Amino acid sequence: MIALSERMQAVPASPIRKLAPLARAAARRGVHVLHLNIGQPDIKTPTQALAAIHRMEQPVLSYSPSEGNLSLRGKLSSYYAGFGISLSPEEIIVTTGGSEAIQFAFMACLDPGDEVIVTDPCYANYKAYAAICGATVRSVPTRIEDGFRLPPIDAFEAEITPRTRAILICNPNNPTGYLYSRREMLRLREIVLRHNLFLISDEVYREFVYGGGRPYISALQLEGLEENAVLVDSVSKRYSECGIRIGAMVTRNAAFRAAVLKLCQARLSPPLLGQLVAEASIDVPKSYLAEVNAEYRRRRDCLVGGLNRIPGVFAPMPEGAFYVMVRLPVEDAEDFCAWCLTDFEYEGETVMMAPGAGFYVSPGSGKDEVRMAYVLETEELERALVVLEKALAAYNSR
Amino acid sequence: MIALSERMQAVPASPIRKLAPLARAAARRGVHVLHLNIGQPDIKTPTQALAAIHRMEQPVLSYSPSEGNLSLRGKLSSYYAGFGISLSPEEIIVTTGGSEAIQFAFMACLDPGDEVIVTDPCYANYKAYAAICGATVRSVPTRIEDGFRLPPIDAFEAEITPRTRAILICNPNNPTGYLYSRREMLRLREIVLRHNLFLISDEVYREFVYGGGRPYISALQLEGLEENAVLVDSVSKRYSECGIRIGAMVTRNAAFRAAVLKLCQARLSPPLLGQLVAEASIDVPKSYLAEVNAEYRRRRDCLVGGLNRIPGVFAPMPEGAFYVMVRLPVEDAEDFCAWCLTDFEYEGETVMMAPGAGFYVSPGSGKDEVRMAYVLETEELERALVVLEKALAAYNSR
Repeated sequence: MIALSERMQAVPASPIRKLAPLARAAARRGVHVLHLNIGQPDIKTPTQALAAIHRMEQPVLSYSPSEGNLSLRGKLSSYYAGFGISLSPEEIIVTTGGSEAIQFAFMACLDPGDEVIVTDPCYANYKAYAAICGATVRSVPTRIEDGFRLPPIDAFEAEITPRTRAILICNPNNPTGYLYSRREMLRLREIVLRHNLFLISDEVYREFVYGGGRPYISALQLEGLEENAVLVDSVSKRYSECGIRIGAMVTRNAAFRAAVLKLCQARLSPPLLGQLVAEASIDVPKSYLAEVNAEYRRRRDCLVGGLNRIPGVFAPMPEGAFYVMVRLPVEDAEDFCAWCLTDFEYEGETVMMAPGAGFYVSPGSGKDEVRMAYVLETEELERALVVLEKALAAYNSR
Repeated sequence: MIALSERMQAVPASPIRKLAPLARAAARRGVHVLHLNIGQPDIKTPTQALAAIHRMEQPVLSYSPSEGNLSLRGKLSSYYAGFGISLSPEEIIVTTGGSEAIQFAFMACLDPGDEVIVTDPCYANYKAYAAICGATVRSVPTRIEDGFRLPPIDAFEAEITPRTRAILICNPNNPTGYLYSRREMLRLREIVLRHNLFLISDEVYREFVYGGGRPYISALQLEGLEENAVLVDSVSKRYSECGIRIGAMVTRNAAFRAAVLKLCQARLSPPLLGQLVAEASIDVPKSYLAEVNAEYRRRRDCLVGGLNRIPGVFAPMPEGAFYVMVRLPVEDAEDFCAWCLTDFEYEGETVMMAPGAGFYVSPGSGKDEVRMAYVLETEELERALVVLEKALAAYNSR
C-alpha cells in the first residue's frame, strides 16, 4: 500500500456528518429522524434568485473572472454599505463558498508550523482548514456557564507565540450563537494591533441577530485594521442557498488580496450559475430577510426555552446565528447521540444532534454538550423537545 | 506591514492571464483582440444541459452530499463504462472542477518537501497546486522537435528521489496536444509500480482526440494500478461548461478516496446547480460530441497548417486537446506577445497568445515558444494567422 500524506492524518473527519450512517440506518428501520445536527435551513430560497437561473440566456456556460463577476462584487459592495462598511468592488473577492474564503485566507498567512488562535468551541472545519495548511490551531476557552463570552486579553496573550499569525473569530458564532459586543471587538482590535496579527472574521450569520440591545459589529468597522482585518462571508445561510457555493473574502489589505488572487486564478473561477443566483438575491426586498429573521427568532425561543425546561439541561440563549450549544445530563454526549439513532424512538421519531466535543479544540472539553441547529419549523422543534426529554430519561435509566 | 505566508511566494501567478491588462488596454484603443491565449471554448453548451436548470424546481438550493450527488456519480460511471472502464459510483468523487480534483489528489499524497514529477511543458497551474501543498515539481523534458513524446524510462528515473510521491500526466496534453501511446502508458505503469508512486492522470480532454491511428489510453485501463492510478476529470471542456465548476476525482484506492472525502467534507459540497447541468450533459446524444470533435479538428488543421506555412514558425501537429505549442522566430516570445498587444495592429486587429515559458518548469525553456488554443472559429483563425505573420515581420524589422 502506498502511503498517503501525513497532512491527511491531521485533517479531522467532520463531526457534524460522522453520525450520518446511523441516521440512515434509523431511517431504513422506519424511524423519522428530526435533524438538529446540521445547518441546512428549510427556508425557501428567494423566488427572485431562482428566477435568475430560470431566465438565464447565456448560450455558453463559460469561465467567469477568477475574482468573480464585477456586477456581483458591485452588489456586495452596496450590501456592505448598508452596514456602514465602505468598500470598493476591488476589495471584494468572490469565493466558492465561505469555506474557500477561509481556506484562502489561511493559505495566504499560515505556513506549516504557524498558529492561528480560535475561540473554543468553534466551527469544526476551522481545524481542518488549518491542518490542510500544515498549521496548528490554538484556542482560548469560552465557557457555557458564561454564555460563551470572550475571555479577557490575557487569555489570548497566553496563547500567542512567535508562530501566531492570526486570530479567527466567527460572529455571530457557530456553534454558540454568541454575538461579540463592541467592547469585545475593541479588545480583539487591541490584541491584533499589539501583536501584528491578522483578524479573520467569519461573519456569515450577520443577518441572524435577534435583537436584545447589542448591535452586530463587523471587524471591518473597526478603525485602524486596514492591514489586519479579513472578512469571510457567504450567501449560503443568508438566502438559504447553501448549494450554490458562493462566498467572499474581503479585505482592504492589497497584498493579502494579491496573494489570494493567485489562489483564485489557480482554481480558475467561482461557480458561474451560483453567482447569478447570489447577485439576484442581494436585490430581494428587505422584508425577505426580516421575515426569515423573525422565523428563526421564533424557533430559537421555542427550542432554547424548551431545552431549559428539561431537567438537567442547560442552554444559554444565543443572540445570533441558528445554533445553540446545550449541556445535557449525560457523561458522554457522543454516546448518547449515537444511542438516540440506534436504540431509541418515541412515537416513531428520534433526534439527531452533533456531539459537542467535535467543536472543541481542547481535548476533553464539551463531552457533555451537543450542538443543535434550529433550522426546523417550530412544530418539529416542539416534537424534538419531547423526544429528547424522553430519550434522556430512558438513556439515564438504562 | 504584516508578512504573508512564505507559501504564497512559491505560488506562481497564472501565465495565461498575466497579459490580460494589456489586452484590455488594446480593446480600449479600439483594437480587436483575437484570443488564442485561453482555453475558453466558443462552442455552445448542449441545450439539454441548459434546460436542466431552466426546469429546476427545487425550492431550496441546499447542500448536496460532499462527494456529489449519487445520480451524477452513477451517470459518470456509465460514461466511463463507454471507454471500457468499470467503476462503481463509490469510486467517483465529484469535485468543484478538475482543478479541485488535482488539488485534492496532491493534498492526499504530498507533504511539504515532497515531489511530484510532471512532463515539461505542462499545464501551468500544476506548479501552483504543488506550491500550495508546499511540495516541489520536478520535470522530465519533452521537446517540440520530438512532437513532445515521452522520454525513455531513465529520464523519469533520473528525477525520482526518496521524496517523489507521484507522477502527474495530462493526456491528451495541455499545452502540447500530445496523446500518449499504449507503449508510453505501459512505460509509465512500469515506473510507478517499480517505485511505488501514484500516477495522477488528468484526462479532461479525452473527447478531443482527432484520430490518426492511436486510441486514447486511460490510466484506469492499465492493469495492476488499482492502488496507484488516480484519474482527474472535468465536464468543463467536454460540454463547453467551464463555468459550472464540475469535475471528478476517480480512483479504486479506497484509502485515497477516504482521505479526499475528508477534504470534500471540509468544503461541504460541490456546486449544486453545476451538478444538475453536468448530469443532463452526460445524456446528450453522441452526435453532440462528434460534431464538436469534427469542428475542433477543422480548427486544428486550419491553425496548425497555417502556422507551419509562416516562415520560421514550427508547430507539431497535436493529436488531441485544443492547444498547440508553437516555436516562433523570436528570441523572447513573452516580449513579442506583449508587443502584439501594446504596439501592433493589422487592419484593426491583433493576436493574444500565452507565452510558452510559463508552461515550463525548467527555467529558460520555451522562451521562443507560445501556446495557442484553437477555440475560435476557422474564419477568425485564418485572420489570426495573417495578423501573426504581419506581426512577426514587423517585430523582427524594428
